[in-house]
Amino acid sequence: MSRITPSFAVTKVRLDEAGSVETDTRADVVAGEEPLEIRVGGKTLTTTMRTPGADIDLVHGLLYSEGLITSADEVTEARYCAGACGPDGMNTYNVLEFELAGGRAPAPEFIRTLPTSSACGVCGSTSIEQIMSKARHPIVPLALDPHLVVGLPEKLRTGQKAFRRTGGIHAAGAFTADGELVSVREDIGRHNAADKVIGDLLRTGQMPAEKMILVMSSRASFELVQKAVTAGFSALVAVSAASSLSVELAREAGLALTGFTRPGRFNLYSGELA
Amino acid sequence: MSRITPSFAVTKVRLDEAGSVETDTRADVVAGEEPLEIRVGGKTLTTTMRTPGADIDLVHGLLYSEGLITSADEVTEARYCAGACGPDGMNTYNVLEFELAGGRAPAPEFIRTLPTSSACGVCGSTSIEQIMSKARHPIVPLALDPHLVVGLPEKLRTGQKAFRRTGGIHAAGAFTADGELVSVREDIGRHNAADKVIGDLLRTGQMPAEKMILVMSSRASFELVQKAVTAGFSALVAVSAASSLSVELAREAGLALTGFTRPGRFNLYSGELA
Repeated sequence: MSRITPSFAVTKVRLDEAGSVETDTRADVVAGEEPLEIRVGGKTLTTTMRTPGADIDLVHGLLYSEGLITSADEVTEARYCAGACGPDGMNTYNVLEFELAGGRAPAPEFIRTLPTSSACGVCGSTSIEQIMSKARHPIVPLALDPHLVVGLPEKLRTGQKAFRRTGGIHAAGAFTADGELVSVREDIGRHNAADKVIGDLLRTGQMPAEKMILVMSSRASFELVQKAVTAGFSALVAVSAASSLSVELAREAGLALTGFTRPGRFNLYSGELA
Repeated sequence: MSRITPSFAVTKVRLDEAGSVETDTRADVVAGEEPLEIRVGGKTLTTTMRTPGADIDLVHGLLYSEGLITSADEVTEARYCAGACGPDGMNTYNVLEFELAGGRAPAPEFIRTLPTSSACGVCGSTSIEQIMSKARHPIVPLALDPHLVVGLPEKLRTGQKAFRRTGGIHAAGAFTADGELVSVREDIGRHNAADKVIGDLLRTGQMPAEKMILVMSSRASFELVQKAVTAGFSALVAVSAASSLSVELAREAGLALTGFTRPGRFNLYSGELA
């Protein structure tokens, strides 16, 4: 059974216009969701719910987005924990052990704040100042071609396999300024999908993501804008809504940001058109 | 300016069939998103991104879902931190201080694991066993009336104000078995919306949520099923997809679970029809 799209017996219920109920029970796929425990230098950094697959990319991207590594070279070892077995005695592949160069381990404060570090301040302006102060790459401005932008979500969907099967999985894609797909990754969590793409770019020597466009099948949250800014993307194109703090951070950082990106239209929240 | 739906200058971009671009820049509302720092007994428990509003409900629900309190009586004080000021010298209303009966404070391990406690195990079965072992209320089975189920998302939308304005906010609603709305809360985060509803039920003496239906405008993640089970709901109705682990947990706990709930149809992942 695929762990990305496991199959369950599901009853599909339909009501016709007269109100009579039809049911049809058969195997249907759903989006996979399993916890991943991430250990760095022997310490548990965090446990995150994710869709299995591209786990190594996910952890690279997470460590990069959180500022623990700045290049893939700093990861000296990445392996699934051999002893992490499920009830059947098989490796669960749900525990990943990373070793960093020089045997570095995350500080206790880092572990405590990790899952909340993306919402680190008590008010938006503090958070934005902190993010800007640790930004590694100035964002290279990219004026958006509207004809190109409106086609990006469909190009992202073309790159998605599991989504077409379950309808329940988010996708993140890195595109060149000309709209060519560089990397696509999927996950039930939008942040994980973004981290997987960022980890892939990092591992393949394509970071910072200058002049690249991060396309998300989801809304644009503050945390996604933060990840895009940290990775040096020039634009973030979101299929769904943008939040207030994501708009503020994008404007401050010089990241182009669109929301509600559909065939023939989108909202431009930050940046300029070509 | 409303903090729930702040207004920004937004450029609406439209392409007609011939490919010519029209732009229209004007003030438009977006979903508010600000960090909330939650302090319990003087210690920072966590900082979460949320849509301002119903913060007291949110923290009650979060503390309940995470097992820190079992009744509203255990909260002796809840106030916005007086000294938490933004750059303008005004209270940010983004720091909430809770005091628990007997001066209880969360243990350090609890703080460390809070944001990940909902994904506590290294494999799904461990997580599910842990959740089932600390479940406080056996779930009272509720056979779902399909005619009632298909109408719940529309009833939820009727109770939503901000959603109609921004399109970017999730809603959670508690309904009776007869489909009457008991509580509705909104947030940019689906888990926060659920915690706000649970906190409201807790504070108004309506817990456990026996025979009640939790309706979510979002997908059904593992964490949402966990919150529904912990609060004693009989059913969870989700507008979007269900994940593999959410289906497994719902079946194990006896929670009825539907996904892709639309006018005239839905998928039944767990439980029975009336």
